[in-house]
Amino acid sequence: MPSYKAPVRDTLFVIDEVLRLETYGNLPGFESASPDIVTAVVEEAGKFVSEVLAPLNASGDVEGCTRNPDGSVTTPKGFKQAFEQFREAGWGTIAAPEQFGGQGMPHVLGLVMEEFLSASNQSFAMYPGLTNGAIAAILAKASPELQQLYVPKMVSGEWTGTMNLTEPHCGTDLGLIRTRAVPQVGGSYAITGTKIFISAGEHDMSENIIHLVLAKTPDAPDSSKGISLFIVPKFLLDTDGKPGTRNAVSCGSIEHKMGIHGNATCVMNYDGATGFMVGEENKGLAAMFIMMNAARLGVGIQGLAQADVAYQNGVLYASERRQGRALTGAAEPQEKADTLFVHPDVRRMLMDAKAFTEGMRALALWGGLQVDLSHKAASEEERQMADDLISLLTPVIKGYGTDKGFDIAVNMQQIWGGHGYIVDNGMEQFVRDARIAMIYEGANGVQAMDLVGRKLGANMGRAVQAFFAAVDGECAAAKADASLADTAKRIEDANGELKAATMWLMQNGMTNPNNAGAGAHHYMHIMGIVALGMMWLRMAKVAGAALAGGASDKAFYEAKLVTARYFAERFTPDAGALRRKMEAGSEAMMALPLEAFGTA
Amino acid sequence: MPSYKAPVRDTLFVIDEVLRLETYGNLPGFESASPDIVTAVVEEAGKFVSEVLAPLNASGDVEGCTRNPDGSVTTPKGFKQAFEQFREAGWGTIAAPEQFGGQGMPHVLGLVMEEFLSASNQSFAMYPGLTNGAIAAILAKASPELQQLYVPKMVSGEWTGTMNLTEPHCGTDLGLIRTRAVPQVGGSYAITGTKIFISAGEHDMSENIIHLVLAKTPDAPDSSKGISLFIVPKFLLDTDGKPGTRNAVSCGSIEHKMGIHGNATCVMNYDGATGFMVGEENKGLAAMFIMMNAARLGVGIQGLAQADVAYQNGVLYASERRQGRALTGAAEPQEKADTLFVHPDVRRMLMDAKAFTEGMRALALWGGLQVDLSHKAASEEERQMADDLISLLTPVIKGYGTDKGFDIAVNMQQIWGGHGYIVDNGMEQFVRDARIAMIYEGANGVQAMDLVGRKLGANMGRAVQAFFAAVDGECAAAKADASLADTAKRIEDANGELKAATMWLMQNGMTNPNNAGAGAHHYMHIMGIVALGMMWLRMAKVAGAALAGGASDKAFYEAKLVTARYFAERFTPDAGALRRKMEAGSEAMMALPLEAFGTA
Repeated sequence: MPSYKAPVRDTLFVIDEVLRLETYGNLPGFESASPDIVTAVVEEAGKFVSEVLAPLNASGDVEGCTRNPDGSVTTPKGFKQAFEQFREAGWGTIAAPEQFGGQGMPHVLGLVMEEFLSASNQSFAMYPGLTNGAIAAILAKASPELQQLYVPKMVSGEWTGTMNLTEPHCGTDLGLIRTRAVPQVGGSYAITGTKIFISAGEHDMSENIIHLVLAKTPDAPDSSKGISLFIVPKFLLDTDGKPGTRNAVSCGSIEHKMGIHGNATCVMNYDGATGFMVGEENKGLAAMFIMMNAARLGVGIQGLAQADVAYQNGVLYASERRQGRALTGAAEPQEKADTLFVHPDVRRMLMDAKAFTEGMRALALWGGLQVDLSHKAASEEERQMADDLISLLTPVIKGYGTDKGFDIAVNMQQIWGGHGYIVDNGMEQFVRDARIAMIYEGANGVQAMDLVGRKLGANMGRAVQAFFAAVDGECAAAKADASLADTAKRIEDANGELKAATMWLMQNGMTNPNNAGAGAHHYMHIMGIVALGMMWLRMAKVAGAALAGGASDKAFYEAKLVTARYFAERFTPDAGALRRKMEAGSEAMMALPLEAFGTA
Repeated sequence: MPSYKAPVRDTLFVIDEVLRLETYGNLPGFESASPDIVTAVVEEAGKFVSEVLAPLNASGDVEGCTRNPDGSVTTPKGFKQAFEQFREAGWGTIAAPEQFGGQGMPHVLGLVMEEFLSASNQSFAMYPGLTNGAIAAILAKASPELQQLYVPKMVSGEWTGTMNLTEPHCGTDLGLIRTRAVPQVGGSYAITGTKIFISAGEHDMSENIIHLVLAKTPDAPDSSKGISLFIVPKFLLDTDGKPGTRNAVSCGSIEHKMGIHGNATCVMNYDGATGFMVGEENKGLAAMFIMMNAARLGVGIQGLAQADVAYQNGVLYASERRQGRALTGAAEPQEKADTLFVHPDVRRMLMDAKAFTEGMRALALWGGLQVDLSHKAASEEERQMADDLISLLTPVIKGYGTDKGFDIAVNMQQIWGGHGYIVDNGMEQFVRDARIAMIYEGANGVQAMDLVGRKLGANMGRAVQAFFAAVDGECAAAKADASLADTAKRIEDANGELKAATMWLMQNGMTNPNNAGAGAHHYMHIMGIVALGMMWLRMAKVAGAALAGGASDKAFYEAKLVTARYFAERFTPDAGALRRKMEAGSEAMMALPLEAFGTA
């Protein structure tokens, strides 16, 4: 049975030493995030997930969720109690606004919690995760009255939330949705339609479920410009704001999925259910996108999280399983065989995992800081810069993070050999659970098009220029340090590939948009490599300074330097290959008719 | 529910036009493989698997195998009947020797059947697949008496076979096995021990099961040089050669696995079971390797097979599912949305799948032909050349074929979006089933070390030099054709990367074997790219000639030319990146102590 220990030390390294959160103490919310507090929060969060959630991960996978004949859904044994503990400890409140009962701490701390939750128990993590998404949408667009009615109980965890976008015939293309919202006397709407793939749509863990539902009003335009957003609570609130009458929304069935069995993925039927409009009519998609951008950052972290828990268990097996001898001669001649750890190909997979997870953690938390700064930084210029950077990198963190996270989970399973294929050992669950993150909240191909088609060109490329400058700055600084010069040079080269790829897109994507589409996924990966490279340079710089300053935890910092080098050596070469693939353009890719794909 | 249609047209293209099997008509076994016969065999085989086996794939996954309280194992509904049909049609006899009841046809046709079986139903395919492996070992090393006793019934499918290598504490490192074989009066041995992960170890599909078991005799050296191979039948044969007394071998449990649920993966307990030595004492590993080399080629084909069936269903969904609009403007304005097929990122995944599956099929069947030629070619020189090439490329076909095959299956699942994650749609089964092929018959890291540590240096690099020459020859020929010049140049460049990587290994792997280990997996992938490139050049050349000759099936050949170009554009750039990763060496990879991988 696999275990999970939250990466407390590495997380604090990123927050305290790389991002230096305390230097933002003058900003709202940051004043309460002193290093002591941050340490306490991270440590306690790590303890909670390891002790309470990780032990339920495998059993939740085996048991799954059950829809009962009355339409109620029972979550796996222990989930309800664990969510009670989660609620009582206030783990959902960390980064929520104080006026709604939250602690108002920086978003970056909320993301730490998201990583720990996902790594310990991805299925469980989705219940509070979707709630956070729903809160974000309500806060962004709903009236103060609706906010006051719903948000405090969602922050406290007494109620949970969902996002209802997908219908049987449409997911990515939301312009096609058919769910109808008909105005009622008194300002509410009657919502009718079927939504699918609704995570946490029905369950036994909270006294109410607040559904956010996309639907079309009777005269809405027949496109994505005709979508409105509604709050549809499972139980309508009585005059005291307490759950009262059961609303006409129900779970029709739960899906049998490849993974995340502990999460209730529901078909939700709305049969004239009472809903309340969030924001303006026909502007629902914009509201949903606010929520989705936050959610996408979280999903990128899920890629990291599954990679990390798989990595921890890959290390464990490599350190215990004895098979064969080191190529350089027996490492432990007194034993009948050496451990897997001595084998370079095993070490390759472990170092790939280490370089990815630590780099991705730094990038994701840096991204969380940008979210904070985009709202709270002192100057408009700083706020805009932060907003530019996180808007640009959100699809990268989601797409690259989950593609790579999945690959790492697969590699960690590989270390276990045949034993990795056996359900009881738990490694294959990480692979199955990691797989969904590449699909939901916008499949990774959609992320790539968001990056290339929307984010890249916005404001005349202001964001990507800022990103180039940030990377260049890190490279220049690092190159001045002889011990980092080679690493910096490699990352600078990767950034050069990214610049060339960007230029190519500008020149060739305009004349033929298929060229942009044909290169988008590759481009997203190049940017992922460069973004991780930027974070590795920052981490290496900090580690070097710590060592020069005589830090006591020498091994930790030395490992950072080695891993930065490994990242530069083994991750950056792909940037050039991906750029060359892009430059082939879309001609051969798009040349064949459908009939040519018949294989008979 | 996914479907499978055997790629009859493409298979015949490879056999008839690329490999030109009829030109070998002077060799034993080939005389009966005239184009008419080959066409009939391939068509009938395709029909059989599509009609009989594919419909049992999903149901077999859901139901799985059951071990009954008496130790017997029940396979999923329909498997037993399907195997009866398989047996009656003689599908197991195609490439088996005539003296044992086989049809003695070329091995290449046996591999076609392996692909079709695996693609239609991977779990089912393993029952005859393991039988073939066991037959190969018996034919290679057992006495004529043992061969006569066991092989005919195995060829006919009345009995099946297994391979018993792995024990709880050892898989790759077989020197560690503990199963004992104690000589008995009369020349047999009493076998005692526990074997795990035994595919088809116990089931209800045949009247006897012939286990091939690795064990150690009492005074055997305590290493891989002390392993002997034994036949241990489930039922001992009576004097008529019919199954008689039950032997002391039983299935202790069946494993709960990520995939291949329809295959009974057993823990086998040998409690003084009667066994018969195959070949010489302490030479068991060599015999097992003969079987494994054949099996590894087959496992590589499994990677291709799962990729192909996933690809077929990816195409189907892309052609039906409507979502969004073509980037170049609505393709079907009369519809509310275009099909997924118009989107470049979807087409990228489909073209990747097409380029891989068709290239891999050609390579695998070419490999099968080399196996035939290594035994049957007229001159010693030709036999040696064929043996060199297939020995070199077997780990590549296995390792690259299954790594890539898995990636393709994952991508095809991705095309289905959220629906790909739902069990009922079948796409996720292909991913789970494809996953095992990267692990069994030697994990892909082991394949990489076999290639780099054993195959590359054998006979002073004779095999790899022959391979370089073969690729160079194809490139030179193709470059003379203006329409293929660019494609050929790219593949020539990839071959240049392979040569440089080989040189680097020679220079750096000797001084520090960890450098070889650190680059082995990358090297295997470079060689896979080049090998597929060689086959794509051959196919393009044939297609160009067919078009020039006014072939009626114009679209088929034009698609080959486009796909060859796509392969060259989108697959070969990785060769350079992989070589650069290799050249980083093992220093950073191996620098960190185990403690540095603790993440807390």
